[in-house]
Amino acid sequence: MIYISRKEHFNAAHKLYNPQWSEEKNKEVFGPCSNANWHGHNFELIVTVKGEPDPDTGFVCDLKKLSVLIREKVIEKLDHKNLNMDVDFMKGKMASTEILTMEIWKILAPEIKAISPNAALHCLKLYETPRNYVEYYG
Amino acid sequence: MIYISRKEHFNAAHKLYNPQWSEEKNKEVFGPCSNANWHGHNFELIVTVKGEPDPDTGFVCDLKKLSVLIREKVIEKLDHKNLNMDVDFMKGKMASTEILTMEIWKILAPEIKAISPNAALHCLKLYETPRNYVEYYG
Amino acid sequence: MIYISRKEHFNAAHKLYNPQWSEEKNKEVFGPCSNANWHGHNFELIVTVKGEPDPDTGFVCDLKKLSVLIREKVIEKLDHKNLNMDVDFMKGKMASTEILTMEIWKILAPEIKAISPNAALHCLKLYETPRNYVEYYG
Amino acid sequence: MIYISRKEHFNAAHKLYNPQWSEEKNKEVFGPCSNANWHGHNFELIVTVKGEPDPDTGFVCDLKKLSVLIREKVIEKLDHKNLNMDVDFMKGKMASTEILTMEIWKILAPEIKAISPNAALHCLKLYETPRNYVEYYG
Amino acid sequence: MIYISRKEHFNAAHKLYNPQWSEEKNKEVFGPCSNANWHGHNFELIVTVKGEPDPDTGFVCDLKKLSVLIREKVIEKLDHKNLNMDVDFMKGKMASTEILTMEIWKILAPEIKAISPNAALHCLKLYETPRNYVEYYG
Amino acid sequence: MIYISRKEHFNAAHKLYNPQWSEEKNKEVFGPCSNANWHGHNFELIVTVKGEPDPDTGFVCDLKKLSVLIREKVIEKLDHKNLNMDVDFMKGKMASTEILTMEIWKILAPEIKAISPNAALHCLKLYETPRNYVEYYG
Repeated sequence: MIYISRKEHFNAAHKLYNPQWSEEKNKEVFGPCSNANWHGHNFELIVTVKGEPDPDTGFVCDLKKLSVLIREKVIEKLDHKNLNMDVDFMKGKMASTEILTMEIWKILAPEIKAISPNAALHCLKLYETPRNYVEYYG
Repeated sequence: MIYISRKEHFNAAHKLYNPQWSEEKNKEVFGPCSNANWHGHNFELIVTVKGEPDPDTGFVCDLKKLSVLIREKVIEKLDHKNLNMDVDFMKGKMASTEILTMEIWKILAPEIKAISPNAALHCLKLYETPRNYVEYYG
Repeated sequence: MIYISRKEHFNAAHKLYNPQWSEEKNKEVFGPCSNANWHGHNFELIVTVKGEPDPDTGFVCDLKKLSVLIREKVIEKLDHKNLNMDVDFMKGKMASTEILTMEIWKILAPEIKAISPNAALHCLKLYETPRNYVEYYG
Repeated sequence: MIYISRKEHFNAAHKLYNPQWSEEKNKEVFGPCSNANWHGHNFELIVTVKGEPDPDTGFVCDLKKLSVLIREKVIEKLDHKNLNMDVDFMKGKMASTEILTMEIWKILAPEIKAISPNAALHCLKLYETPRNYVEYYG
Repeated sequence: MIYISRKEHFNAAHKLYNPQWSEEKNKEVFGPCSNANWHGHNFELIVTVKGEPDPDTGFVCDLKKLSVLIREKVIEKLDHKNLNMDVDFMKGKMASTEILTMEIWKILAPEIKAISPNAALHCLKLYETPRNYVEYYG
Repeated sequence: MIYISRKEHFNAAHKLYNPQWSEEKNKEVFGPCSNANWHGHNFELIVTVKGEPDPDTGFVCDLKKLSVLIREKVIEKLDHKNLNMDVDFMKGKMASTEILTMEIWKILAPEIKAISPNAALHCLKLYETPRNYVEYYG
């Protein structure tokens, strides 16, 4: 088993806000992350796929196809967008890095299976800032 | 003459939008950067000060004081904010990295003079993303 | 299960030196790392916590609280210090990155449990230089 | 158990090319990576060793010895070389990052055992570019 | 006057070789960089443009247009190529980072003038490795 | 004129301390940087040389020779050392990054002239941390 990773990026606005709470409670729990007029980040997304290298190509999966897949299925929906307002798969969900990573998994896992039948999504790593990141293994 | 630099960071939302233009013209010129619901970035700000080292300290300026100054006068106004809506010194201005850098210069240049009479602001370098940045020398 | 990480940093001096050995043996085993007058590093500490996101916040744990915890319990004791001489929890221990990481674990694991009952410390990653680092899972 | 890592680098040319396929098929599958006159990369290799710290040194393994070992056994054979033409252990194999990583494992695993009897190679991480990398655990 | 920069990248093979010299002299002067079968790098190219921000856009120049221009005029000719063999504008020239940078300048300076009449190419910075780079101001 | 740069690194301990001042004054001015038992950093030194490329080599100066020179004349005196106690050219001087950079200039400027008669030292850039650095042009 070998693991291959591809890094992509997107820029987005969001806020952390629980609509079932008062303004005060949101402010207390989320602090400046709940700023009513949003803030944003340069997100970095690392997608790790596992499998055995194909003897004809030496590849676990074709990184160019993987890059195109990530961009078409995920980056286009997130880049230069508002995570709370513009993203269909985040509607009604908390726009935390944890939840966003879990939702990206639901999209990418079957798509990777489709383009690389002998490979599988292993890990998503999502940097919100160079100091904060999430990892998810499904 | 010697140059000393300090790097700080802030996260903010913005959009590129000229209110004197139609939606179509904004979309045409600014593309996804004009997304009505905003997007955002992890900005990195590098402040460079020039001067001669003080013989008693070996310092051009005290970097701890410089860091506190940048945070109090600039970062607090920008971090977790919307550059178009929340920032007094950006009101009525295009929220491009160029304009933002020039406005930060107006704030920091006199303040640095005040804390380090023998030093002067030399350059501001503002990264909007790891691939896009602006430099300004006043 | 999802994993969330926070990076902090500190600067410290140390030397590698076994007091039960002769100067010659220390020099032979540790080379320049045993320099009598110390050397130092910019350490980077990445703390990874695991758990399930809280449905109300979308958080495994509050990264602001985690950051404050790491700074209060660990960074303040190490930053701008001598690892061999100034740090209570390193007294009588080899000041290697491995031992330092294991001692930081002993401090942080119960503290993280206290602030995030549904989460747990998963991994500490400590960079001594950009080329050398240690990982520890308890 | 604790994990310690050392990063080294090398620059090399390669192409992705299956000699059992036509030029057209190679072009179709590998795209620009099959360019007849080669292309190249700055590779970064991270070697992770696991074990228990030696009580006399605080070390899982001596990183200076590990660095020398990686350079002598691996880097000297790859640096400023053509992976398809100049490297004995890659002869007749696909010059993909996956295969290269697996071949480096075969070289380093017994050598690390020899210099550090209580430690073992745990992981190789090979960056082909800052955006593409492979991990292998044997 | 304000300066705005855009970073792009390409991967290429090359060797340092003076055809008017013997193999021995090439080996003596260029060492492993003259390896007959090539080696390669992940190059990073930073293009800096200077000018005054347009009052309607806040831009010195449109970074999306600049990015497309750099990719079409420079990156496509260099990426996944052999600098000595495949690149028309490097034919008969030493494939050093210095010469490559000066040739890229000749291509980009007039093109930038054409897309941004009020701006001008100010600097090219070309990283051959993270440790070696060239800057050129025309 | 073209500019070529080489990055090297060293690890060192130091403290900021003016022996003509009381302990209290040192503490007040330098804060934790005056810790009696030292602290330390991973320094990164970037040496920039300017000149015209030699037509036979395409080089402003031979980066391998430049790297050897920097290591022999500067790095060996600083790496794994105490800047206040172990370094002949820092004796009796403040161990600030500013002063250290100016002293390195005095060593390297004539040495670079000696190995590259048509080139000259242009700039030294010394990172004390990834957030603090000094530039000096002689």
